[in-house]
This record gives sequence, structure tokens and C-alpha cells, in this order.
Amino acid sequence: MDKKAIISSLQLSQEDLLKAGCFDTNQIVKIIEAALVSFKKGEIIFPDKTVQIFDKKTQSRINCLPSTLLREKVCGVKWVSVFPQNPALYNKQNLSAVILLSNIRDGFPLTIMDGTFISNIRTAGIGSVAAKYLAKKDSKVIGFIGSGEQAKMHLITMLSVRPSLKECRVASLNPKNEEKFIREMQVIFPGVLFQGTKSDLGKAVIGADIVITATSAQLPLLKKKWLKEGVFYCHVGGYEDEFSVALACNKIVCDDWQIVKHRTQTLSLMYKKGILKDQDVYANLVEIVSGKKQGRQNPMEKIYFNSVGLSYLDIAIANWMYQKCLKASLGKEIIFQKEMIFSRPDIRRFIKS
Amino acid sequence: MDKKAIISSLQLSQEDLLKAGCFDTNQIVKIIEAALVSFKKGEIIFPDKTVQIFDKKTQSRINCLPSTLLREKVCGVKWVSVFPQNPALYNKQNLSAVILLSNIRDGFPLTIMDGTFISNIRTAGIGSVAAKYLAKKDSKVIGFIGSGEQAKMHLITMLSVRPSLKECRVASLNPKNEEKFIREMQVIFPGVLFQGTKSDLGKAVIGADIVITATSAQLPLLKKKWLKEGVFYCHVGGYEDEFSVALACNKIVCDDWQIVKHRTQTLSLMYKKGILKDQDVYANLVEIVSGKKQGRQNPMEKIYFNSVGLSYLDIAIANWMYQKCLKASLGKEIIFQKEMIFSRPDIRRFIKS
Repeated sequence: MDKKAIISSLQLSQEDLLKAGCFDTNQIVKIIEAALVSFKKGEIIFPDKTVQIFDKKTQSRINCLPSTLLREKVCGVKWVSVFPQNPALYNKQNLSAVILLSNIRDGFPLTIMDGTFISNIRTAGIGSVAAKYLAKKDSKVIGFIGSGEQAKMHLITMLSVRPSLKECRVASLNPKNEEKFIREMQVIFPGVLFQGTKSDLGKAVIGADIVITATSAQLPLLKKKWLKEGVFYCHVGGYEDEFSVALACNKIVCDDWQIVKHRTQTLSLMYKKGILKDQDVYANLVEIVSGKKQGRQNPMEKIYFNSVGLSYLDIAIANWMYQKCLKASLGKEIIFQKEMIFSRPDIRRFIKS
Repeated sequence: MDKKAIISSLQLSQEDLLKAGCFDTNQIVKIIEAALVSFKKGEIIFPDKTVQIFDKKTQSRINCLPSTLLREKVCGVKWVSVFPQNPALYNKQNLSAVILLSNIRDGFPLTIMDGTFISNIRTAGIGSVAAKYLAKKDSKVIGFIGSGEQAKMHLITMLSVRPSLKECRVASLNPKNEEKFIREMQVIFPGVLFQGTKSDLGKAVIGADIVITATSAQLPLLKKKWLKEGVFYCHVGGYEDEFSVALACNKIVCDDWQIVKHRTQTLSLMYKKGILKDQDVYANLVEIVSGKKQGRQNPMEKIYFNSVGLSYLDIAIANWMYQKCLKASLGKEIIFQKEMIFSRPDIRRFIKS
């Protein structure tokens, strides 16, 4: 770092994060568990997010999600855009995210980093924390509805908590995406048996021990009748399962039910229609992680997990990744302010008036 | 720009902004006027700011202020830290700010830039927009209580709208700061007569045509009896003037009274105590800029201006500066994401699980 600059930061790309060894699913699970407990203890400031929507129909938006880890003395913000038409219009990814961290000793910025990878691994990470406590220990088959980046990331984190998984089935509304999913994932997990379904959603799900829906369809794609006893269902998107799915489950667990119930996911819709009540939700995940409530109690239970996304988890993960990159001397120094503006002897020549 | 990277941005330092010719006070005035009008027309999304306070006593905090310029198709956030103890504890500046802009076509980030300069020139800029309409045309003497970066910036912007100013007096609670102020400003304005006061606040203000208080004192430093007829008083800080100052003024103008009245500035305190009512506030600045209400109507009026800070103005200024830097090919390209993570043929070796 240039010691002479008044304000500088470390800039980190996705590629820096990979090189530093941040794609470490076991560590992600540990960080998420610790942050959930830390929040419960009051060690995290977590203000409401700010949502700016630019198009009511497409729901194109940029969300601004600040939070502070008081124990780590780090305040950060995730700045994330969701433009559902990007793939169709520009052949670009839907989501882009940037994370900025500042220290809370002097308030100066520490790092500005890629947030897309963090955002994706956080979502999949909390799903795998849930699976750790709620999926059967000997789960063999995992079935996906949806085959995008979120589905891929979930497969990776799920395999780290349930290495017993031997078979992965995938259904996408577009069969080409199934092929891409399998091609990319087979490279990473040569020992897993992959199966495409040519958009046959039931075929992907029936008989699976772990079912994951990661789609932006906004349709009740997942049917109750497809779910076998003992299933762990991880709901990632918005509205994508029949109401009867949740009603048929023995336990419903959320990352934070008080937040979930005011959103627009399947459980939220059910709550707003009066079909689901507060007491129907068994626990928030932190209660299970901290041992206050039990996770799976027998191999027959059907368990439903829904996460709405807690952005202080992104900040906790980002802070861990930043520390790893610092240690590995990765990233680029960027300067925001070299000197005090009026200390420059030549400032006069820059002023136009 | 590296066309191959999926997500990249332009990183801009204060020094880049200076080189690009952004310290242009006339332009800043124009941009602020246009943005005030644009907001009034509904062309700007301006959500509430998020404030995270880390120390109740010192009020150390980081504020997160997003907004969107719909016409310019730019969404941005100012991330600003205010740590009042920085100068004493670390010999560092109180304030640091970073601004991030994204486009609202695909949501991707455009630039991450120094925000400290923008933040300071915005505050002084709106003061000079007010002075343009509210200060006497032939103002000769400007008096400052406070001599920090904000005072300096105000002198520069005030001189651009009132080049008739010939004399500048300054009072600071620390006389050394007066000397520094004069030393730095004399270089920029060799034709102006500067006068220090050795902390004699009255001496700085009595007889001045324009009075500016830019201090964090939180004491009623400015006395009503010091203000002459025809004065334009620009209140920059929090609580720093006797209540009788506002009561003695013929017009009170705010950047946005509906926001001001809920804060903790002198006018806000008066409102909360019932000493000031809605009808006592003559106008919001935009009503005068757009010609709906008159500015100064005679040379005897005493006029009070208070701005609380509208962060969409920072975003409007930042966007203009970004465009100027783009044209001048200034700044550094930074890459957030080079490629889709699962498109890497070597991704397997980066995954630890």
C-alpha cells in the first residue's frame, strides 16, 4: 500500500478471490454459522435494505445492503443489481454485485471487491448450512429444478456437507441449460452420476433425498406428489412450488421468518393469504445451529427450508475473503485521495471559476 | 476498457478529477440547479439514507446514500464516513467518501470514485447557488466562523457567484487554523484581502455581506447583533447560531425544509421547540431557482440559508465528473469479474471442500 496516499483501498476481482483459496465451502459454512450466532447476540448492525426498482414489469433493480460486524470492526455494503432481462437482451448475467468494506476505527475504506461470487456462494452456503442439520445423513440423490449459476453453486456446497450424494438430476425449462450444467459440473465431480431430464421436472425430483428449486419462473413448478418421505427441500427462488408442498412438510425452517413473511416467496404468499401462520414455522436456522432447537429428528421427516437472504452474511464472507487476499498479497492498490486538496501548492491551476 | 472482462469499472481518484477539470465551480452551480429542478419533476429516485452509528458519544458513523438519475440512467451510492475524532486521534481527516455509479440498462457498475472532493464541493456548491439568488449582487466582505475544508471550499464557490467580494475574514477556535486557511486561500486568490481574527468571532462577522458558519462546535457561536442589514447567512454545520439569528432574518430558505426539520440543525431544534413553524420558512431553494418564488427583493433583507445535504446532488455531480474523466481518458480500469466462474476449464482446482 502507498503509505503516502490519504485514502486508498485494495481492489479484488473474482479471480483474486479464487487464487486466494476463497472457494472453500467448509469455511463458508463455518463463517455463516458464526455470523448467524453473532447476529443473534447483537454483534451485527443490520439496517433495512434500500431497493430501487427501475421497471415495474421486469423488476430490474439495484439493491443497497449495508451492515456492520461490530466485533470485526468492519462496516460494509453490498451493491447488487438484478436485471432479469440481461441474458435475453444482452447475453449477460442477470446479477452483478460489488462489495465495499470500511473499517470502523477511522471510517476509511478497506476494499472494493467483486460481490457476484460472494453473493452466489452465500446463498448456496446458507442452503448447505440448512442441509447439514436438516438433510438425511446418507442422502444419495439430489434433484434440481433450475440449472443456472445458483443451481451449480448449490450442488458444490451441498456436496461438501453431504459427500454421500452419488447422483444428481437436473431439469430446466431449456434443455440446453441442463447440458451446460452437466458439462460444467461433471468436470468438478467426476464421481457423481449426472442425469438430464429434457425439462421433465418430475423426473428430476421424484425419489430425490435433496430437492433444490433455483429458478425465477414464478410458477408452482414443484408438485407435492413428487416429494418422497425424508426429503430435504431447499427453496432458493421466489414462487416456484405448490402451496401444498410446504403444508405437507413436517418442519418449515427459514433463515429469518420475520423477514421472509413480508416478502414475495411462496411462504410469504401463503402467510399473506392466511394459509400459513407464525406457529407453522418450526425455527429460524440460527436456533438449530446454536442447539436451541433440534434439526432433523428422524429419517421420515419432510423438511422445507427457505432463505430470503441475509446480507450481513455477505459482509461476513467478504471480510474473511478480504483477509485471505491480504495475507496472500493479492489484489490491486487503488488510490482515492493522494493528498489534502488545499495542501497542493499547485491547486490554483486546477480551479476554474 | 478490457472488452473481455464481464464486469469492470473505471476507478477515479481525487487527482484524476482535478486533472479532468472537475474543479469548475460554474459547472457545479449549473449541475446543482438542474438536479434540483429534475428532482422536483420526479426524475430522480431519492430513498432515505441509512445511518450506522458506532459510538453514541462521538457520533462516529458511516452513512449510505443511494439515489438514481432516471434521465441520465445512472444509479449511484455515496458511502461516507464521519469520524469526528480522526484529527485528534490519528491526525487524519474527519470525513472520507467513496461514490459508486452503475448504469440502469444492465445494472453493471460504471465507476468507483473518490467522493470526498465531491461531497465537499457539493455542500459548498449548494451554498453558492443560494448566494447567487440571495446574496447582494455587490457583496464586498465575506466572514467565516470555522476555517476547515468546508470553509475553504465555500470561499471558492462563493467567489465564483460573487466575484465582487474583496475581503475575507476568518475566525476559528484555533488561531493556527486561521493562518492555514489564509495561507492556502491567499495562493488561490491573491487579489482578496484576508484577515485573521485570533478567534474573535465577532470581528470576522460584523459588517460582512456574506456570513458562513462551517464548524462542528454545537454551540450558539453566531450572535444576532453581529449581522448587518442585507446580510446573506449560510449555515453549514449543525447547531452554531443563536435562535434569534433566524428569527431576525426576513427570509429563511432551505435546500429541503421537510428534511431539515427532522434533523438536528439550529432550524430543526427551533422547529422541535415550537419556536419556528412551517410557514416561517420562505422557500425551498428549488422554488427560487425555478422562478416560482423571488430571491432577494431588496438590499436590506437579512436572509438565512440552511442546507441539510441532498445526496442526489452528489450523484449528479459524480456523474458529470465521471463523464469528463471518460472523455479525458483518465482513471484506471479495474476488473471485478473476468469470466463466468463455471466456464473456467480449471475451476476444479480452485474449489476446496
